Amino acid sequence: MKMQQKENAISKLIQQLEKLPGIGQKTAQRLAFHIINMKTEDVKALADAILSAKTSTKLCRVCCNFTEDEVCPICKDEKRDKSIICVVEEPQDVAALERVKEYKGLYHVLHGAISPLKGKYPEQLTIDVLMKRLSDPQIKEVIIATNPDVDGEATASYLARLIKPMGIRVTRIARGIPVGGDIEYADEVTILKAIEGRREI
Amino acid sequence: MKMQQKENAISKLIQQLEKLPGIGQKTAQRLAFHIINMKTEDVKALADAILSAKTSTKLCRVCCNFTEDEVCPICKDEKRDKSIICVVEEPQDVAALERVKEYKGLYHVLHGAISPLKGKYPEQLTIDVLMKRLSDPQIKEVIIATNPDVDGEATASYLARLIKPMGIRVTRIARGIPVGGDIEYADEVTILKAIEGRREI
Repeated sequence: MKMQQKENAISKLIQQLEKLPGIGQKTAQRLAFHIINMKTEDVKALADAILSAKTSTKLCRVCCNFTEDEVCPICKDEKRDKSIICVVEEPQDVAALERVKEYKGLYHVLHGAISPLKGKYPEQLTIDVLMKRLSDPQIKEVIIATNPDVDGEATASYLARLIKPMGIRVTRIARGIPVGGDIEYADEVTILKAIEGRREI
Repeated sequence: MKMQQKENAISKLIQQLEKLPGIGQKTAQRLAFHIINMKTEDVKALADAILSAKTSTKLCRVCCNFTEDEVCPICKDEKRDKSIICVVEEPQDVAALERVKEYKGLYHVLHGAISPLKGKYPEQLTIDVLMKRLSDPQIKEVIIATNPDVDGEATASYLARLIKPMGIRVTRIARGIPVGGDIEYADEVTILKAIEGRREI
């Protein structure tokens, strides 16, 4: 069976699908059989979408988010507040923040977080691009929205140390009990952060 | 955001991925961003695997399972027992049965089950192909391994009525408590089938 699996096109597809995150052997098999049962035009549309997402996506010259143009729609948008930049780890984070429809400033995508253990050093992130942006005198605040984990916190401290001397306000997103969450089940560090971050009501 | 989502290549990819079974919006997004971060050659390999699985897969002339040749490797295999045919609904079922490495006979893939409610009638399945196969006098038994649900049972009865008059033994796979399962949580019909199917120990 193992030998046979290497030979045919279905098994090759299953192998390719298994490489994707969160797709195990059973899911890969189910998807592969589904794809074979799809209409040929739909299969072509899927394959095309995969290729063109890869080939036509580049990094915005300004904020390093994924885009198809030189400058992304958010950076180009005249209505966005250009005095504030929210720094995130990944393009997905921009998508998540945009879904809230509340934040009207700009973004900067680092493409990772500093993590010496994982071999990620500051020079591998887009920190140099961010620093050049911050020379623009209209920028008043940088919100650091890296993840509240070890790497994200280290990156936040690192950036704060670099940016504060430039006379720009540096803020960090609040950490606390998630809405709908339960204090009883929250970990100690989260509870600590929730108390530290308490506000007048 | 909705408007913008329709325009770019990433959103198109997310839309395509969301059409796959078991892939919701969040998973589609995670997969899309993963694909963009993959090496170009790996993305090409994935897209090629999708297209070639679709284009190079056809139905085995004998058993109607997916194959790349005229006749599938199982039907071609001289070592398989040609006196017994196991009838299943889908190609996935053959893969599942082959994983057990116990059954050494042949298969027949119906490509569905009879279900008037879902608009699936006997003529849309590969029952005619099966009937032609059964005219071969070396076939002694047909094991019906359609799913133990309403459609699968209806299909099993239909096939049994057709095949029995030909003097071929027709058997049905056992229904009962799954191994590792719990009688306490089994439904009544399964318990009934388990009692009916009891054996001397």
